[in-house]
Order: sequence, then structure tokens, then C-alpha cells
Amino acid sequence: MHETARKVVAGEVHAVSRLIRDIDDGDSEVPAILKDLYAHTGKAYVIGITGSPGVGKSTIVDQLISHLRDAGKSVGVLSVDPTSPFTGGAILGDRIRMQRHAADQGVFIRSMATRGAFGGLSRSTRSAIKVLDAMGKEFILVETVGVGQDEVDVVGCADTTIVVMPPGMGDDIQAIKAGVLEIADIFVVNKADLDGATRAVNHLKGMLDLDSAKYSDGEWKPPILMIEAVRGRGISELLAAIDQHRERGQSSGVDVAREKVKEELLDVVRTSLVGRCLDYLESRTDKSVEAILNGESDPYTESENLINEFVSST
Amino acid sequence: MHETARKVVAGEVHAVSRLIRDIDDGDSEVPAILKDLYAHTGKAYVIGITGSPGVGKSTIVDQLISHLRDAGKSVGVLSVDPTSPFTGGAILGDRIRMQRHAADQGVFIRSMATRGAFGGLSRSTRSAIKVLDAMGKEFILVETVGVGQDEVDVVGCADTTIVVMPPGMGDDIQAIKAGVLEIADIFVVNKADLDGATRAVNHLKGMLDLDSAKYSDGEWKPPILMIEAVRGRGISELLAAIDQHRERGQSSGVDVAREKVKEELLDVVRTSLVGRCLDYLESRTDKSVEAILNGESDPYTESENLINEFVSST
Repeated sequence: MHETARKVVAGEVHAVSRLIRDIDDGDSEVPAILKDLYAHTGKAYVIGITGSPGVGKSTIVDQLISHLRDAGKSVGVLSVDPTSPFTGGAILGDRIRMQRHAADQGVFIRSMATRGAFGGLSRSTRSAIKVLDAMGKEFILVETVGVGQDEVDVVGCADTTIVVMPPGMGDDIQAIKAGVLEIADIFVVNKADLDGATRAVNHLKGMLDLDSAKYSDGEWKPPILMIEAVRGRGISELLAAIDQHRERGQSSGVDVAREKVKEELLDVVRTSLVGRCLDYLESRTDKSVEAILNGESDPYTESENLINEFVSST
Repeated sequence: MHETARKVVAGEVHAVSRLIRDIDDGDSEVPAILKDLYAHTGKAYVIGITGSPGVGKSTIVDQLISHLRDAGKSVGVLSVDPTSPFTGGAILGDRIRMQRHAADQGVFIRSMATRGAFGGLSRSTRSAIKVLDAMGKEFILVETVGVGQDEVDVVGCADTTIVVMPPGMGDDIQAIKAGVLEIADIFVVNKADLDGATRAVNHLKGMLDLDSAKYSDGEWKPPILMIEAVRGRGISELLAAIDQHRERGQSSGVDVAREKVKEELLDVVRTSLVGRCLDYLESRTDKSVEAILNGESDPYTESENLINEFVSST
């Protein structure tokens, strides 16, 4: 077993931190370590929390941590922030709020940002979830801003996905409603003290009712919860809803698990195949580029040639 | 030459529309058509316009269209909206504004949304740019919301990138300043009539001055323009800045062109390689998935096996 993997399984925080940073950086040793860790994963329950900026996701995560810790559970948190692909690190911003848990040994919190590595954010996040899982965290909270395909993929890694809505939603929700209906297992309208929270709930109810045919044959219908996260109101109800969804998920059985494993496998195939090919081509593209520049060839023809060269070299 | 390619080169709008839709859908016939089109590309000048939602990008695009049309230039516009990966189509929203140009034969406007196809938004956009280029558009405007890696890649296809800022930027600009400095060729502060526009300009100037060493050795220093797009104020100045940047780019010569061609080539390699591999594996993953579910293997080992199988089959 790789030394780092051993340390991660033993719960050594420094090793975990370094490994997650290496994942973010696309370090070449990472796959071997993840392979060693794999046998130690599959026990954590992953909760995705998504929603527009400013909707109160971090406060909700903060409250969930407190409640889960009070119940004696260990917690890992990944804050995924794709809005800062440039800075080489996620913006801490209101994540600082969560830092009151930093001294708690049972909580591990990290921010992730894509560095533009191949496969992007969803691959890194998926790997980081495995690491927290292997280190023994019972619950893993993945917080991400709800914009773009990358983030949809991120919440695709979660067992339960919570979509957080602001009160009094107008055009915004119109715009994403189709997607929200697809990915949400639980809706939360935060800032229940503000005008428009009830309107938001009714609006969501109306949208779900349009799909009532879908839910009549026993499919999980996302509950809609009104909470006020800054005061901790509604958090117990949220945890109860998560538990219900979890039980439902476990009864839905092996088909879901099979689908998840397949997705994960193809994700590794993609990353690994492209990584190998680009490594191989590193110093072999010059001739093709010249041919294209001179108008003697095109990227499609050259791509075929290069791929064939790579494949026959392997 | 493929029939569709012939029609695109002849400027047939229906063929172009259908092809762009097929690109968005990841249709399997697309690569062959793009290959045929390649010899007819390379003439268009591509302008990227990015910035947060609500900052006035569409209004600026609308004004640029008018000015370019007045100067007798043909124009293609791609509105790339990654905030709606679910709906299967970009949100039209204020794009409707641009529709006053819809009856103008010299203007072609399309919205694109990622459909989660491998390679995502940047690949589709790159291909769509080629199509508009091949159909003979002299200027191609690519408008995208400035969030996430995908959009950075999108503006990476542009010859000149305009970053639009709101007046009176506070925390937002702090957050992305490193990235903005990297990708912007021209800064535009829109809504110059509002309080804070001058402050925003000064703030940007201050940031650029921090990097003054970089610009002292003759590198392009992004100009900062104050405009008021709804009244058309400052658009001529913006076009003049684009012209200046264009001249600079042409004098920077073949190295930049070589780098662009290489990026494009590797993009095609990635897409095509993964496409072929996933097609091959389509019905071949079951055994691996079972082995992983039974705890007899892991995704990393199975990925290697599947990749080797694919490679030796080719």
C-alpha cells in the first residue's frame, strides 16, 4: 500500500490535505494512491448542496456540520468554487464562517478549484470525495455554486442533492427550473423570514405538481422545506428529509449503485486515456501543426494520424 | 465535398443552422463536415465578450453588430449560455434585443448551450465558430457569461477578448481579478452613467499598474474604456481598440498562430479519442462494473484493462 494511502486511511490530516492538493494539481502519482484507497471507500454518505451565490449555502453547511457533530458523526466538507478558475484556489469568502469547526478533529474542511486540468472540476471533486470517504468521514458535504455543467456533474456524485433557493424567486428560477427539477432531491427555501419565502415555496410546489404523473408511480418527490439557516431554524427537519431520502435510496437497491459505479469507471477511463495520449503526443505534434499552418492538412486528418500513432505505440 | 459543407460555404442559412444544432447535439456526422469546411476557414476575426450576468453584454453585442454592419462587414454571433445546461437550449432572455438584426442577411445569430457532451461547451463553440467562418462571416462575436473554466476556454478561441465590468465593482472584481487580468485584451466599464463607473475604471487601472513590469517590455496593455451601451456611447472607441489589438496580434506573427493550431488539434484529438473509446466500450463495461461492485476490483484497475482492450482492438 502506498505510504500516503496508509496515512489517509489512518486519518492523518496532513496527508489528506496534501493528497487533495495533489488531486487539484493533477499530480501524476494520484491514480496509484486512489487505487489503494478504493477498498476503504463506499461507507460515507455524500450530500450535495447547490444554489446561486448568496443564497446561504455556507450557512446551511455550517448548521449541518453542527447538527451532525452533535449526533456524534464525523463530517468532511468540500467547498467547490468554479468561479475562480484563475486564482488557483477557491475563494474563501463566507467559508470563513465554517472555520469555527476547524479545531474540531471530527470535521475536515477543504476548498477546491478547478485548475483547468483535463476532466475538470467534477473529476477532482469525485476523487476528493473518495479521499474523505477513505479517511473515515461518515458524512461528506459538497457545496457548489449552481452554474454550469461542471457543477451539475459535481452534484451527480452526491447521494442526496439539496437545491437551495432564495425567497421571492423571479426570473432566475424560471431559467433553471427544468434543471432544478431534475437534480434536486430536496428543495430548501432559505431566509424564511424574508418576504417572498412562501411565494417561493408555492412556486416550487406548482412546478412539481406539473410533473405529478412522474411522482404517482412511487418515484421520490422532492420535499420543499422553508428554513432560516442563520438562526438554525428548520435544520432538524432538513436532516430528517435527508434521512428519508437515504432510506429510499437504499431500498432502490443495486441498479442505482451499478449506474454510479459505471459512471465512475468511465470517468477514470476518460481521464486516464486522454492523459496517456497527451503525454505521448507531447513532443509529436510539431509536424502536424506545420502541415495545418501550411494548408497541407487539417486538424481532423492530423488528429486521426496522431491517434493511430498513439494507439499502435501502446 | 460533403453536401452540407458545400451549402455552408455557399452561405445557406438553413444548412448552417442545422449544422450548429448538430454540433450542439454531438451528431456523429459533424467531424467529416468540419473537415471539409476547414480549408474555407481562417478568415474571420473572432471577438469574445464576457462578463457577469446583467452587465450589458448583449447590448454591447447589439451595438457592435450595428457599427460593423454600417461599415459593410458581415457578422456572425454566438451566444453561449452555460447557465442552462438542463434546458437543452440557451436562454434567450435579452438576446431578443439583438433580433432586430434578424432580418439582415449580413447577420447570423445563434445561441448555444452545452448538452453535457464530452468536451463540453468550448469544443462546440470552437466548431460553431469554424462554421460561421466558413460561411464567410468577417466578424464573429462570441458572447458568454464569465463563470467557470468552460467560459475561459470559450474566450480562448477569440482573437480579441473584451471583459465587461459593471460600474462600482466591489468584492466581485476582487475575486476574479487575477483571471480578468489574464484573459482581457480590452476592459469595458459599461453603464458609464451610473455612480461608481469612474471608481471602477480607477480600480482596474490600479490593478494593471501593479503589473506594470509586464507591460514595460512591449506587451499589449489592455485599455480600459468607459461606455454606455444602451445609448451607443463609446462603441466607436471600442471598435478602434479592437482594431489596434488586431494589428498588434498580426504583428506578433506565426508563434501565436502555431499555438492556436496546436490547441485546436489537441482538442480534436481528445474529443475523437474519447468518443471512439466510449463507443467501443458501450457494451463492454458490465463485467468490470460487477467486479467493482463485488469488491473484487476497483475502477482504476478496470480502467486500465478496458483501455488496453480498446487500444489493442484498434
